[in-house]
Amino acid sequence: MHVREVPTPALVVDLDALDANIARMGARWPGRRLRPHVKAFKSTALAARLADAGHDAFCAATLREVAGLAAAGLGADLLLANETVDVARLRRTLDGSPEARITIAVDSPETIEVAAAAGVREVLIDVDVGMPRCGCRPEQAGRLAELARSAGLGVRGVMGYEGHLMAEPTDRAAKVAAAMATLLGAHAEVGGDVISGGGTGTWDCNEHVTELQAGSFTLMDTHYEAAGVGFAPAMHLETTVVSRHPEGGWAAVDGGLKALGMDHGDPMIAGAAVWYCADEHTVFSMADGAALPAVGSRVRIWPAHVDPTVAYHERLWVARGDEVVDEWAVDLRGW
Amino acid sequence: MHVREVPTPALVVDLDALDANIARMGARWPGRRLRPHVKAFKSTALAARLADAGHDAFCAATLREVAGLAAAGLGADLLLANETVDVARLRRTLDGSPEARITIAVDSPETIEVAAAAGVREVLIDVDVGMPRCGCRPEQAGRLAELARSAGLGVRGVMGYEGHLMAEPTDRAAKVAAAMATLLGAHAEVGGDVISGGGTGTWDCNEHVTELQAGSFTLMDTHYEAAGVGFAPAMHLETTVVSRHPEGGWAAVDGGLKALGMDHGDPMIAGAAVWYCADEHTVFSMADGAALPAVGSRVRIWPAHVDPTVAYHERLWVARGDEVVDEWAVDLRGW
Repeated sequence: MHVREVPTPALVVDLDALDANIARMGARWPGRRLRPHVKAFKSTALAARLADAGHDAFCAATLREVAGLAAAGLGADLLLANETVDVARLRRTLDGSPEARITIAVDSPETIEVAAAAGVREVLIDVDVGMPRCGCRPEQAGRLAELARSAGLGVRGVMGYEGHLMAEPTDRAAKVAAAMATLLGAHAEVGGDVISGGGTGTWDCNEHVTELQAGSFTLMDTHYEAAGVGFAPAMHLETTVVSRHPEGGWAAVDGGLKALGMDHGDPMIAGAAVWYCADEHTVFSMADGAALPAVGSRVRIWPAHVDPTVAYHERLWVARGDEVVDEWAVDLRGW
Repeated sequence: MHVREVPTPALVVDLDALDANIARMGARWPGRRLRPHVKAFKSTALAARLADAGHDAFCAATLREVAGLAAAGLGADLLLANETVDVARLRRTLDGSPEARITIAVDSPETIEVAAAAGVREVLIDVDVGMPRCGCRPEQAGRLAELARSAGLGVRGVMGYEGHLMAEPTDRAAKVAAAMATLLGAHAEVGGDVISGGGTGTWDCNEHVTELQAGSFTLMDTHYEAAGVGFAPAMHLETTVVSRHPEGGWAAVDGGLKALGMDHGDPMIAGAAVWYCADEHTVFSMADGAALPAVGSRVRIWPAHVDPTVAYHERLWVARGDEVVDEWAVDLRGW
């Protein structure tokens, strides 16, 4: 099937670009030095491709992602890089995945208590390295590790996500080093083999962690492209022109804000200016006085933020060039 | 079950508020004078509640919504208020719903040709009334109606969506009247019984249409609240505090931008200031120096835009007061 035959709106993955991104990342972060974050793509099929490339330890943001990875046979070393206080769901996830190795992040006495009550075996101490979200204060890390060990939990080490620096325009490496100094300081108090952190935006300057938590590099988006991270755009939204207005200078395609994560702003169309996204439409004009595409023409839209874009879709159409070669379920959506 | 027991993040519908919204709208737009737009809530269960209140003609934005409504026995009078050029999918929808009455919008010779080729029986001529998206130029409407009739299509009338005026702060009624004068002018050339338009933002000032296309009034959002439309907030995102930082003044809950449509900006938390949404977290501080809620506490988040919020979820939990009384599938997602 040709990409032009895929019913729109549809996410299309460029398999060669994806493989090139995986190879590029793997050259710097081989094997389990990379812990791919599945939240970016929410597909066990894509995760399996990473595992085939040697990256078989994964990072997840939800228990649904953890359970789905385990059920797909990808449970060699799963990290819930997030806090939870839902004992029942956590226990169900663990009980449902007896063969998986599941580690979870904790950052408080409460989350440690939940982990112990649910039957978790191993944790990482999540440390705040400068982005207000989760993570304990660095000076609390040692005490929390002690508390976790006294509750019977194995403490594998620390994690700290420098999310505020992913697209930092100036002195990214130095700022990352400062954030990671905080994490390393906490690690000295906590112990363990694992220092987990980083992401697509700091893949080439975070020399400090033992494993990199990156996911967006696989499919990419215009936000990370603008940040200059050096991976290739590997996923677009395929759309069809449904309405054309030469007198007003605009056209509308059949994919909009329900097919695109909008928190990073409007998506991009090459050679065009996006006016706005409505629920099921993107409206645009052409740059440089080019003619608007005809009704029925295909238009490729490049998402501004990959994670919430994929989360709207049931499947990824996988193409080599213009030939659809596979279809991957987005099977890790929801909670 | 108490709302506190629902696993988070979860959308919770306040059934009494929903029913009050339906009653309020129905008093002004009884029976088929209202054509509820299912794109706002994407649930056949909620649509069935509207049908029970006498509003059994529906408006849809996607063929998936049309097919789902028909399959649920809600196909008395369905309008695809959108253009499509996908002959195969349109034909499949029609063939799969032989008992439904399905009307579609057309705004060009191409969309008329598609409708005829797919076996559509009835259309509305979609007219541009001032918002650049779909819809023909008003002066083309008569010619398109002629073209449609000559292609064997029944022309039921016109539609025109004044979407650019839904939250208009000044002279909304006068501006709506001007937009609708355009639609009525086109209708004079087109003929037919139907003049379809309007929405939640113009429900009380669009005196001009024969049927109102509104959906957001059912569940509401902070955007429409700010526009002063007079319906009650009837849906929130139930979340749980997973990380608390009294020293920094913030806390994080377990629902973020993958559980909330973000095109209208950040959501609202009563008594708090939202700092930002991450993929799976919303970070906030308390107003007036109030203490941050404890880890494990529930926090209600009020979405800024209902449509793309619901589209992220598999279900709506339905509550009367704090008691969960039902669970509605969000079964019209995707395309």
